[in-house]
Amino acid sequence: MIGTATEADGPQIQRITARAGVFSQEEIECVRELWEEYVTLGSEECGYHFIVYREGNQVLGFACYGPRDLTHGAFDLYWIAVDPSARCNGVGRSLLTASEAAVRKMGGRMLIAETSGTAHYETTRKFYYGMGYENEAIIRDFYAVSDDLMIFTKRF
Amino acid sequence: MIGTATEADGPQIQRITARAGVFSQEEIECVRELWEEYVTLGSEECGYHFIVYREGNQVLGFACYGPRDLTHGAFDLYWIAVDPSARCNGVGRSLLTASEAAVRKMGGRMLIAETSGTAHYETTRKFYYGMGYENEAIIRDFYAVSDDLMIFTKRF
Repeated sequence: MIGTATEADGPQIQRITARAGVFSQEEIECVRELWEEYVTLGSEECGYHFIVYREGNQVLGFACYGPRDLTHGAFDLYWIAVDPSARCNGVGRSLLTASEAAVRKMGGRMLIAETSGTAHYETTRKFYYGMGYENEAIIRDFYAVSDDLMIFTKRF
Repeated sequence: MIGTATEADGPQIQRITARAGVFSQEEIECVRELWEEYVTLGSEECGYHFIVYREGNQVLGFACYGPRDLTHGAFDLYWIAVDPSARCNGVGRSLLTASEAAVRKMGGRMLIAETSGTAHYETTRKFYYGMGYENEAIIRDFYAVSDDLMIFTKRF
């Protein structure tokens, strides 16, 4: 049910991002920009890889990852989101597991997921912990005052 | 002696990057890409601000900084480099002080400088400590195995 995202998945990916409930307008716009690069240039050229979780014609979630510039083997999980209607069904877990497998296949040694330390993102942090990620670093007041950056890592 | 970089400074900036002795070919290429965006789009549009330290017609060093996407008030120090012939004369300190002043003027709350934990970058790390930066976070084996990412921050 997981596959490489194709151009036709764009509108559903945008809809999921908007419906996810945790992303700001600026973040939604950022997903759109990465998607545009992915569709226009291709994943190899732009460095952003999109995968989707499909059920029939419906996209229930997506993930976006890619190699971090200037590193040898560190990859970023840029985005992962599941439609609210499909939560708690393992869609997010499947997407992250598939992202990790793809990263390993590309020679990745570690996957980095950045998120916020606010209460709003507690479910996200629990998700990463549950998937075997470690909160390796924190930058206080990164996103805004009282909104820390929490850097999660998983090594392969 | 410090001023906004102009298009004519490009070759000297590239030369300093190559001569600095700490940057890989990929990093030198990255500086070139940011410079191209700066010259083509302008600092406001691309988010990269370049300043130079000049003595007469000669550029002795440069710095590049800009706002971090998705944050309110966090700025990155992308690059800072001084020509080997001009080391230990306060050029780096002047460039960093000027970068900090510019960031504050743009509403920045903090400046983030990322560097490597290897012996090769010991002088760089000492420089940040001496300028009042704190090593707030470390990601082990980030750049490569046994080559950690060290995140330095200074708050205003």
